[in-house]
Amino acid sequence: MYLPPTLTRLIELFSKLPSIGPRTAQRLAFHILMAPQEQAEQLSRAIIEARGRVRFCRTCNNITEDEICGICRDERRDRSIICVVEEPQDLLAIERSGGFKGVYHVLLGAISPLEGIGPDDLKMDGLLARLNGEEIKEVLIATNPNTEGETTSLYITKFLKPRGIRLTRLARGIPVGGDLESTDGATLTTAFEGRREIIIN
Amino acid sequence: MYLPPTLTRLIELFSKLPSIGPRTAQRLAFHILMAPQEQAEQLSRAIIEARGRVRFCRTCNNITEDEICGICRDERRDRSIICVVEEPQDLLAIERSGGFKGVYHVLLGAISPLEGIGPDDLKMDGLLARLNGEEIKEVLIATNPNTEGETTSLYITKFLKPRGIRLTRLARGIPVGGDLESTDGATLTTAFEGRREIIIN
Repeated sequence: MYLPPTLTRLIELFSKLPSIGPRTAQRLAFHILMAPQEQAEQLSRAIIEARGRVRFCRTCNNITEDEICGICRDERRDRSIICVVEEPQDLLAIERSGGFKGVYHVLLGAISPLEGIGPDDLKMDGLLARLNGEEIKEVLIATNPNTEGETTSLYITKFLKPRGIRLTRLARGIPVGGDLESTDGATLTTAFEGRREIIIN
Repeated sequence: MYLPPTLTRLIELFSKLPSIGPRTAQRLAFHILMAPQEQAEQLSRAIIEARGRVRFCRTCNNITEDEICGICRDERRDRSIICVVEEPQDLLAIERSGGFKGVYHVLLGAISPLEGIGPDDLKMDGLLARLNGEEIKEVLIATNPNTEGETTSLYITKFLKPRGIRLTRLARGIPVGGDLESTDGATLTTAFEGRREIIIN
């Protein structure tokens, strides 16, 4: 196909990235070739710098460039409630909503027998240390509402229940702004089961 | 939002790439963070290497790592017919189809008054030099079937007509594998105008 080897290589590496198909990979690679040298250098440098500087918070495993992340360092956050999530991206989505003012614990994974990820692969030690050391009133388990997330949630629940700490999870139901017609059956069933009183005042 | 600055920077640079929205940019950046250091280094290096090594063929402006591209060097190609395209990606699409055995000339652009690209911004000099120096029987203009491509095609036609060379363009019509219902009106009209006799033998 007469493609220059360095271009073929770049297309190949781009197409290994998530949500990048072969066509997009080719478009990206050609863009890099045609872009000013400076732009290619910036992207190349940014990849190395981000990968090199970003690490996991020593307290909660959130991503940070420091030893302790911005949330753990923030004096205004309520340290008595820990929200447990699978990945830093989940934390980011919750922060974007602005609806949670406590602190986090990132497991950096979820139990998945299919992928060979067991309970020992999760960052649970740090969470236990925090429960022993700090004044924690509540652990809110915010794993994903899928098989891996539910399994992980169950594991954490069994692990923490004997400690008598308050364990909660996110509400399930129809999404805000969604419509009944396009809501799947499992979600609808959950929404019926979890129905709430309408309070008239 | 507590995002590490190097991560914010990476997301920003990814989202400047074509067909990458803010969500995909974030997904890509997180993937880089979580990937093995080696994978990030490979991608970073591939970007710099591709941008640094790939240049334009001295004959036809196709991309290559050498002075002359693989197609121009290929003895089996028919040098008497030159297919004129806008970008190296167009050449690649034609090569993928396998339907053309001549050589190319890449303009590296198309006339676009809106974007301030005039005839002088196209790589026409090389084409003229080839017409003067080589035995060319036909110039097939394969610019895109949009306003910029048509304008460019018209310009080349006016320029080359006085030379008495055979000028052709790609056939227009309903796409193979497409259906009439989803074909736009302009294409349908073109297909009617360009209808061909059915030959019964």
